[in-house]
Amino acid sequence: MGALATQTVDTTKRLEALRSLMSSSEHNVTAMVIPSEDQHMSEYIAACDERRAYISGFNGSAGTVIVTLKDAFLFTDGRYFLQAEKQLDSNWTLMKSGLPDVPTWQEFLSKNLEKHSRIGIDPTLITAADAESLETSLKAKESHLVSLTDNLVDFIWEDRPPRPANKVFPLDVKYSGESHQDKLKRLREELNKKPYKAMVVNMLDEVAWLFNLRGSDIDFNPVFFAYAVVTHDNSLLFVNTSQVDDVVRTHLGDPVQIKPYDEFFPYLRGLGGEVDLSDELQVLVGDKCNLAIVEAIGRERITILRSPIADFKAIKNETEIEGFRQCHIRDGAALTRYFAWLEEQLNSGTQLNESQAADKLEEFRSELDLFRGLSFTTISSTGPNGAVIHYSPDPADCSIIQKEQIYLCDSGAQFLDGTTDVTRTWHFGNPTDEEKRAFTRVLQGHIAIDTAIFPNGTTGYIIDSWARRPLWEDGLDYRHGTGHGVGHFLNVHEGPQGIGVRIAYNSTALKSGMTVSNEPGYYADGRFGIRIENIVIVRDAQTPNNFGNKGYLKFEHVTLSPIHKKLIDASLLTAAERSWLDAYHAEVLDKVSPLLKNDTRALAWLERECSPL
Amino acid sequence: MGALATQTVDTTKRLEALRSLMSSSEHNVTAMVIPSEDQHMSEYIAACDERRAYISGFNGSAGTVIVTLKDAFLFTDGRYFLQAEKQLDSNWTLMKSGLPDVPTWQEFLSKNLEKHSRIGIDPTLITAADAESLETSLKAKESHLVSLTDNLVDFIWEDRPPRPANKVFPLDVKYSGESHQDKLKRLREELNKKPYKAMVVNMLDEVAWLFNLRGSDIDFNPVFFAYAVVTHDNSLLFVNTSQVDDVVRTHLGDPVQIKPYDEFFPYLRGLGGEVDLSDELQVLVGDKCNLAIVEAIGRERITILRSPIADFKAIKNETEIEGFRQCHIRDGAALTRYFAWLEEQLNSGTQLNESQAADKLEEFRSELDLFRGLSFTTISSTGPNGAVIHYSPDPADCSIIQKEQIYLCDSGAQFLDGTTDVTRTWHFGNPTDEEKRAFTRVLQGHIAIDTAIFPNGTTGYIIDSWARRPLWEDGLDYRHGTGHGVGHFLNVHEGPQGIGVRIAYNSTALKSGMTVSNEPGYYADGRFGIRIENIVIVRDAQTPNNFGNKGYLKFEHVTLSPIHKKLIDASLLTAAERSWLDAYHAEVLDKVSPLLKNDTRALAWLERECSPL
Repeated sequence: MGALATQTVDTTKRLEALRSLMSSSEHNVTAMVIPSEDQHMSEYIAACDERRAYISGFNGSAGTVIVTLKDAFLFTDGRYFLQAEKQLDSNWTLMKSGLPDVPTWQEFLSKNLEKHSRIGIDPTLITAADAESLETSLKAKESHLVSLTDNLVDFIWEDRPPRPANKVFPLDVKYSGESHQDKLKRLREELNKKPYKAMVVNMLDEVAWLFNLRGSDIDFNPVFFAYAVVTHDNSLLFVNTSQVDDVVRTHLGDPVQIKPYDEFFPYLRGLGGEVDLSDELQVLVGDKCNLAIVEAIGRERITILRSPIADFKAIKNETEIEGFRQCHIRDGAALTRYFAWLEEQLNSGTQLNESQAADKLEEFRSELDLFRGLSFTTISSTGPNGAVIHYSPDPADCSIIQKEQIYLCDSGAQFLDGTTDVTRTWHFGNPTDEEKRAFTRVLQGHIAIDTAIFPNGTTGYIIDSWARRPLWEDGLDYRHGTGHGVGHFLNVHEGPQGIGVRIAYNSTALKSGMTVSNEPGYYADGRFGIRIENIVIVRDAQTPNNFGNKGYLKFEHVTLSPIHKKLIDASLLTAAERSWLDAYHAEVLDKVSPLLKNDTRALAWLERECSPL
Repeated sequence: MGALATQTVDTTKRLEALRSLMSSSEHNVTAMVIPSEDQHMSEYIAACDERRAYISGFNGSAGTVIVTLKDAFLFTDGRYFLQAEKQLDSNWTLMKSGLPDVPTWQEFLSKNLEKHSRIGIDPTLITAADAESLETSLKAKESHLVSLTDNLVDFIWEDRPPRPANKVFPLDVKYSGESHQDKLKRLREELNKKPYKAMVVNMLDEVAWLFNLRGSDIDFNPVFFAYAVVTHDNSLLFVNTSQVDDVVRTHLGDPVQIKPYDEFFPYLRGLGGEVDLSDELQVLVGDKCNLAIVEAIGRERITILRSPIADFKAIKNETEIEGFRQCHIRDGAALTRYFAWLEEQLNSGTQLNESQAADKLEEFRSELDLFRGLSFTTISSTGPNGAVIHYSPDPADCSIIQKEQIYLCDSGAQFLDGTTDVTRTWHFGNPTDEEKRAFTRVLQGHIAIDTAIFPNGTTGYIIDSWARRPLWEDGLDYRHGTGHGVGHFLNVHEGPQGIGVRIAYNSTALKSGMTVSNEPGYYADGRFGIRIENIVIVRDAQTPNNFGNKGYLKFEHVTLSPIHKKLIDASLLTAAERSWLDAYHAEVLDKVSPLLKNDTRALAWLERECSPL
């Protein structure tokens, strides 16, 4: 969440200029939409945000803009109602998504606009699949989507900051575990199966993974703006050439051609002729591809499928897995130093706000080997703020951490050898029985996932209820998933696997080598939030039998940070759960304490927190 | 499974006669299909079986017949390969369903038959939905389904036994808990919501439930051949009038019109004119309706949806629930008498086969109040036969029960006040460690379902993995669902709810008042089978919290029969699981022992089996 700005922008002139372009004979549209960013389409993360902020004045991180020749609407959700009310001027109508009787922006386009509307959209900002379903629902009013060759907001935006173009760097094979040559070979084998003539890679993390390159164009995600096309003979990387130096060129070697980013769409338009496409021989494109790619190649020449690179990337190799283990030991040391420091601060009566505390945690992390930044904005939250699931403290306006309230901290970092994401929940005073009981139920759900054994073919959808069962027994629950995939020195949220109630998680079986978070929680609105999150890796399990010859799987946790015993109601735990906790704490102490030789406060704290229950 | 007949029928003349009818100008078809019965379309249970047996000579309970002008094929599954090989003469080709490279009968029709085939089918023997998807797949060869006005097998079958037409009788409201007038009122309120002009009821158990009538036209299922049509003003029951006496007429009262069964389709063909149907005002038909109904009314005039009666029926009222409790106490007494008797027989060295034992169980049950027959063929199985999930002993050729093998008994009865279905697994000698460990894992899965608490909206698909988790820990699993719905003095298998891995179970949330079985198992092919099955009723749970205001649910078990302690490895159980078992046994003893005053052997056995672990 961005800072809660109170300054409003007068959007009158900007809207006038936009509408003039819209009604020009060249574009000829009666409405225009800038959809909210889709986190999964990382190729344009921030692009929507920026343009939405410019045209509307609202700079929250989620929202869809619809501008017609007369009116202007901003759709955003409950997290941003207050901010949007403050930032939007009188040209704008705020549409509060999620409230009863408020249509989605898609419904609004197909039901509230006039018949025969021509709705302009930048085809790089919508997936082909979303565009197709939107086009279908527009039929009722005989309206149409119109792909704009250029984004009209960019035309009227004089001082638009350029797209980030930071240096790209190679990720050594000692961290990635597989050369990009081998990855390209695997991809080509996949293309041969069907056969496809080529694959267009449009997800930034897939490009980064495929070529063992990383960047810093997007906060927290070590990726860079790029597209790639892989044919049987060629690999083309479309990237702003100013971002690529000789180190990168040497790393990639001759077989990979580097092309200017802006030549991507012209190249696609010529692709049909070049590789001899036909109904039988098609171009493979991932299912998150944007509409512009489909239009450039031609819908009849492409096959849209779940990207094979997403499936490759989801399964970590042994080098990546060992990297996950190692970076989590270091990360555990920084967490220990931070929590020990925080406890001392609060015990000594220091007034610390949530953001200052988060900064201290970042400071400890930044001293770690191979550290390359945070993996997301730290959620440092006291009392009621912990119940706001996506809370992040505004440095200019956040709460003082209260010793007598639950403190929830969800944080993570990027390292060359892996990515971390960990939540711990503390109470530095005297927790209530209610808080302890809820925390214990969450812990029991966490242990149920950690100790899970299940046959190959089982999805995260199937085992999600194991995490909820202890909470359900008390009539408690949480309104988020139990676990998301995690990239290896890549996006901290990564598909396609996950553990949760979203039916999409039922389409991907958990496989050995996949990483997921294990993060059940409980949130008492206006009072406190609880979450216990470790990263776990799916591994083969050695079971006494192997019914059905399927092979059975288990989880290996890599996160190493004590779970707060003071918040546990031990009477609720089974003997097996107690043993799990004690063994986990012994493991944490064993692995993390060697890194704390120079911080006696942290070491003493860790020894205390890791003692048997 | 029927008796394994070895006598074959010469089908040459029958096939000749059939083909002559097929190629007549009146029918003009090049192939004919008799699909395997669909258990859910109870209106014609047995009709397919009989005709298949007549034309092919194969009298197993599952199989599809396809006759072309030259060839004849029988498709059946692994349970019946041996029987079919023995029974089919040289006119027939056996298609072994489930083996690699053997097409389904639908694939066979759409891929193996000649182009432009005209495939005759009796439209009462296929659901409209199945016919629609079949018609689509036939397009590739420009073939077509042809609805035959009469079943051609019936024409050539001279001594065809008449359709069963046993007496129909009313079920007193003291058992049903709701008058048929009130049920009709509820149904009409449902019709009004949309609004629909009428509903056609084609499932036999739905007709029986709606009018509080029962019959005995189909083994084990207390239903009778009938259709019904409910409009806002009329209720029409189409039934062979010889089955209906004055008691039934008085019970139904004037507002229900009884019509001859054979007038059903002519009535439907006139329905459009009678109730003034239009695109807006349609006839509602359940999604299991047959093609003949759709063709008689006209596809454009009907709406096919999951039957609201199925949803009504699935939720038992308090009278039905109390009936379930009471009949299970009586049923538990018969089970006790049987297992005590069986143990004594085996200890004394009596040679008993599986079928003789099952007969004794039926004898004990038949002495119970309100008994109306078995609810399915008793599975009485020793050793390896227990691993055949749908085994039932052939009286003429079954195994002697071995004291040193696991004995699995799955059985149930129909009572005026409810339906039972219970599986218990015993060992009358010395079980192996492997058997005990597997039994204990199954028991732990059973307990996990029995003690489940979950929010409203949760489906049986979601909680199925709770039953499997203890087995998965040992690399074990079972290849059937965990639970099916159970009718109230109706079909022992009843939809739409259930607990299992079939995705269809994810479409129906478990609701208070629903009945399901809880029957995890484990099967070691060729050696033994284990299953522990109770019937449970979904009830509101009193949880300390009510997060999300959803309300939380639990299960109440009604089955009362001891779970074999000798087969339990107590070291695997948690303290909570031990307590559950002891409490369950105390409840069984408390409720069942008062009915055993005249059977000291049974009482002594029950006291021993119900003592604390």
